[in-house]
Amino acid sequence: MQRANQGRLSTDDFSRESICIEHISPELDCGRFPVKRIVGDSLKVSADVVKSGHDVLRADLLYRKKAINVWSRTPMQYDDDEDRWNASFLLKETGTYEYAIEAWVDKYLNLVESTKKWFDSGENILTELDSLNDLIESAIAASPADLKSRLSRRFEEIQKSNTIKAKLQLAEDREFAELVNSSLEKPSLQTSIILEVAVEPTLARFGSWYEMFHRSQGNVPRKSATFADCEKRLPEIRKMGFDVIYLPPIHPIGRTNRRSRNNSGDAGPDDPGSPWAIGNENGGHKSINPDLGTMEDFLHFVCEAKKLDMEVALDLAYQASPDHPYVREHPEWFYHQKDGTIRYAENPPKKYYDIVPFSFENKNWKQLWEELLKVVIFWIEKGVRIFRVDNPHTKPIGFWEWLISSVKSSYPDTIFLAEAFTRPKSMKLLAKLGFSQSYTYFTWKNTKRELEQFLDEFVLSDVSEYYIGNFFTNTPDILSEYLQKGGRPAFKIRLVLAATLSSSYGIYNGFELCENRALTQNSEDYLNSEKYEYKVWDWERPSNIKDFISKVNKIRRENAALQFTSNLRLLRASNENVMFYAKWTQDKRNVIMVAVNLDPFNTQDSTVYVPVKELGVENQSYFVWDLITGKRFEWRGETNYIRLDPNIEPAHILLLEK
Amino acid sequence: MQRANQGRLSTDDFSRESICIEHISPELDCGRFPVKRIVGDSLKVSADVVKSGHDVLRADLLYRKKAINVWSRTPMQYDDDEDRWNASFLLKETGTYEYAIEAWVDKYLNLVESTKKWFDSGENILTELDSLNDLIESAIAASPADLKSRLSRRFEEIQKSNTIKAKLQLAEDREFAELVNSSLEKPSLQTSIILEVAVEPTLARFGSWYEMFHRSQGNVPRKSATFADCEKRLPEIRKMGFDVIYLPPIHPIGRTNRRSRNNSGDAGPDDPGSPWAIGNENGGHKSINPDLGTMEDFLHFVCEAKKLDMEVALDLAYQASPDHPYVREHPEWFYHQKDGTIRYAENPPKKYYDIVPFSFENKNWKQLWEELLKVVIFWIEKGVRIFRVDNPHTKPIGFWEWLISSVKSSYPDTIFLAEAFTRPKSMKLLAKLGFSQSYTYFTWKNTKRELEQFLDEFVLSDVSEYYIGNFFTNTPDILSEYLQKGGRPAFKIRLVLAATLSSSYGIYNGFELCENRALTQNSEDYLNSEKYEYKVWDWERPSNIKDFISKVNKIRRENAALQFTSNLRLLRASNENVMFYAKWTQDKRNVIMVAVNLDPFNTQDSTVYVPVKELGVENQSYFVWDLITGKRFEWRGETNYIRLDPNIEPAHILLLEK
Repeated sequence: MQRANQGRLSTDDFSRESICIEHISPELDCGRFPVKRIVGDSLKVSADVVKSGHDVLRADLLYRKKAINVWSRTPMQYDDDEDRWNASFLLKETGTYEYAIEAWVDKYLNLVESTKKWFDSGENILTELDSLNDLIESAIAASPADLKSRLSRRFEEIQKSNTIKAKLQLAEDREFAELVNSSLEKPSLQTSIILEVAVEPTLARFGSWYEMFHRSQGNVPRKSATFADCEKRLPEIRKMGFDVIYLPPIHPIGRTNRRSRNNSGDAGPDDPGSPWAIGNENGGHKSINPDLGTMEDFLHFVCEAKKLDMEVALDLAYQASPDHPYVREHPEWFYHQKDGTIRYAENPPKKYYDIVPFSFENKNWKQLWEELLKVVIFWIEKGVRIFRVDNPHTKPIGFWEWLISSVKSSYPDTIFLAEAFTRPKSMKLLAKLGFSQSYTYFTWKNTKRELEQFLDEFVLSDVSEYYIGNFFTNTPDILSEYLQKGGRPAFKIRLVLAATLSSSYGIYNGFELCENRALTQNSEDYLNSEKYEYKVWDWERPSNIKDFISKVNKIRRENAALQFTSNLRLLRASNENVMFYAKWTQDKRNVIMVAVNLDPFNTQDSTVYVPVKELGVENQSYFVWDLITGKRFEWRGETNYIRLDPNIEPAHILLLEK
Repeated sequence: MQRANQGRLSTDDFSRESICIEHISPELDCGRFPVKRIVGDSLKVSADVVKSGHDVLRADLLYRKKAINVWSRTPMQYDDDEDRWNASFLLKETGTYEYAIEAWVDKYLNLVESTKKWFDSGENILTELDSLNDLIESAIAASPADLKSRLSRRFEEIQKSNTIKAKLQLAEDREFAELVNSSLEKPSLQTSIILEVAVEPTLARFGSWYEMFHRSQGNVPRKSATFADCEKRLPEIRKMGFDVIYLPPIHPIGRTNRRSRNNSGDAGPDDPGSPWAIGNENGGHKSINPDLGTMEDFLHFVCEAKKLDMEVALDLAYQASPDHPYVREHPEWFYHQKDGTIRYAENPPKKYYDIVPFSFENKNWKQLWEELLKVVIFWIEKGVRIFRVDNPHTKPIGFWEWLISSVKSSYPDTIFLAEAFTRPKSMKLLAKLGFSQSYTYFTWKNTKRELEQFLDEFVLSDVSEYYIGNFFTNTPDILSEYLQKGGRPAFKIRLVLAATLSSSYGIYNGFELCENRALTQNSEDYLNSEKYEYKVWDWERPSNIKDFISKVNKIRRENAALQFTSNLRLLRASNENVMFYAKWTQDKRNVIMVAVNLDPFNTQDSTVYVPVKELGVENQSYFVWDLITGKRFEWRGETNYIRLDPNIEPAHILLLEK
């Protein structure tokens, strides 16, 4: 066990600490985990620097890319009101930066300041001036040649000055003081621990995801679509405004215990099986299901997506069908029962018959872990930089920390999205371990109270230091009751909420068509789910909301305020069925207010409360422009009125005109 | 620099962590400093224990006195609502305890529970039962002889059971599970860092201090009183209800630059000098000023105090008069100027002509530090266990941490009170470094707003984990404007506030006589301060408040609720001049509510708001008994009415009758 605090009983092994650097922010779990930021952000670092007595202190913020030896440094500024030191540095690149704080006594300014105080109070300061001269002389003696002459010149001026006042004025000159200081040792020098910040690519904060079930993108019934079919849909998806195309597993699908339609039993010869049952005689996690095409077809698909400025995200599902080559080649990577059989994946009383889990702590764990790392590297080298990770909360904590840091040390632009729906503390821990983004409970939060509680915990708290939620409206596993019952308005409501509450959000295909048929009542599974069968969609189905989605995504692109999540401000609305919130950029040049009617059945009106003081529109009327309908409203003061008919438009996305 | 987080790139040097122990409470600054408690307290320790997957977890709280090798342990209980683990242990002795948490997977119960779930859902569980047998057998094999037979007997019963249900019922028996577990290894065992709690004696939390200016306790004008005179006053002070007699420095007083009456210039031959200018030809910090008596006289005084159940506190002022033997014997312990003279203590533009400061970082610093430690030990061995430390914030941080831990490792009952009036962060740091108690800003907080803000920061926040305030009404340096102007009612008001807001408080002699003459307007110094001259007091002076003080201290003794500070609850009073607050014991058997009129000039009335729900007196009338006047009031509901005339009694101290 590591002892946090050492007992110190002898002066012999006691280090004289005279400056205490405390309460550094940001800091996560005592530095055990890095905080998270996005490339281009400036990281503001603050700390308390406490020393006994009345010395003039100095502090520097030190920072560097991890694995680079040389520190950069910038002076910290002292904030007298807060008794706190602050400095910032720019996170220019993705990857991990380290930062730390150095503090020391400013011997020179200390002496200059006390000399001035004595002088101002009418004391004899000859002794002090003498010490000052000594200090400058020792700085000159210790300084390199180029500095020596500059210092000496100034020193001469000081000595030649006729009055003490003039001498002190020269002595306290900031630039001169810096020069003297740079050649003096730093008394009481104290250094903090080193902290870390993980810098993610922009897409980890701002992106719109489209989950595309590859084999249903064609139009031949009872037959798998191919990557070529998928490619054909890209322009339409780009037109809707999405940045990421996320595909379920693209690998060969196991045959043993393959599931049939609607997960209703063992599969027949025509059932394609669940793509998450990875591996058969054609290969495993590094192979492609021949039904979808070849590796070349996949590469072409990725390439076409990139041409349209979209990234392809793959599904990283660390599990195997019983037919996976790993099962034959590395039996020790799996859990064997006494009778020699391998255990199905299970979470009593649920059994996943068509997959077997890895034994992450088997005696050959290192070999397994290295192989799973190779899987990621394999696809990165094929042009994939985003991985949606299936059920990470059932794999060891240490595995993720190792895997993600290993990948990111070579490929810092990689994005890992954690698909964990479990206890909040586990979800938060995964984010700390290195996942760029995480799924959230958003999908099930429908009432104002539920939404606000959820946002308070995951967005408006310190959790935002490391947790970036990706708000999905639906997934192949989750067709929420709200969508099942609320019809087309419900789909528009959930889209606006996802897309404006969070800068990262996603939909699963079919959402744009308002697909809402559930397997059974009380089930969140889709009827005739693509997970177990081939499907053909009519992408132009009547009553689709593709234009609405295009519009909302366009608004997101054109309004920087919506490209952040931590700037969310929940505002008051008098009606419990109406959510009202705002986002603005730091400079307040882009201010967006959103009002959403959460009731998909009835028109709701509400008084909404605008923070006019903060927005600088106090005591005046101002215009808000609904970016959905194009209508302008003249508002005045804090309280204003809105009315939303879900069958027309269930939400306002209002731009404050300035 | 210490790296908080290690980069982990190779599986070779990677330790597979699968359980994460997070957010241990209490924990101060990541374990850098101990939290503080009082002997007899129970320390509740909580933590998050997070593991991937669905395993049944177990956690133990480990604890021990520091420097003892063997850990005690107690199982932590899981709180499902909070997803958090909790356990407590008793702090039986003063000194430092260590605590830590161990967590692991309960292999046995894990298997029992999943087997049950399969069984309940109608699955075949023969394989599981087989594994269960194996596990029990391996536990039996690994267990010591005495356990072996108990386990075997039970195992036989399980095997003989006719039904699976009966088997499982026997298997999940708590006691049996414990036995099996105790013989199995602990999978995924994880241990937290070790944290510390400093356990202080009861007097550090609950005590009433009386600062006695020794040389003014007699009745011969212009002559020093002696310890014998001090002794005569003890019964009277005990009668007022005080527990601690704190004396200014008792050592020989320097002659060089000795200050005269009212600090007005250099002293004449009859001026006794400030006791804080320690040291002359008669000795220094380990000697006694002959004017006060001999060492024997002092020992007698301490002994008499102890007979009356009072402790003597000494003033630890680490500074020297220029005549101190140290100056001659250890010139290197002081700051010398170029001309060979030693610098006066100073804080520009203030100069303390009669003292010189120690140079704590001189080349012989170890020798100096050890000597200063010897000073404390010297007086501890004379029977003193309380030290009020003068200006600790001008001495190095590291010095205090070392000194206090050195003293406490041998004398854990020692109490150090920090007299630091400086920036809040420095005052808090001193408390973290080991000071048992600290002076506070209470002395200057007079309005309700000021008091509540101060209490919010120092009492009602996390600061109470390590900071125990000692609320002084006045000191030889601080006669507040409020006392100067408010007359006798002001003294009663401040006494009630100090004595009921804080379980530790103190007065400086003269307070009981309502002495309020200041040196000048805008000065907080007393006129004709004892610090610079001999003084004779009439301890029975008319209008004294000795009986009132006796009464308040008696109430403190008789009501356990007032013997704590962290139980303070500020309550609402409608009038800005009225403070209303409550304290109750954990079991709510002793509930005290205090109403104070802060206006010493006018009668004030107010509605006060009683937390009837929490106190269990909702929907009923209840009686409160004013322990000052003996009057009983019948109250009903949340809102009640009070009226306080400062010239009669400015406060109610109300006991809730149950």
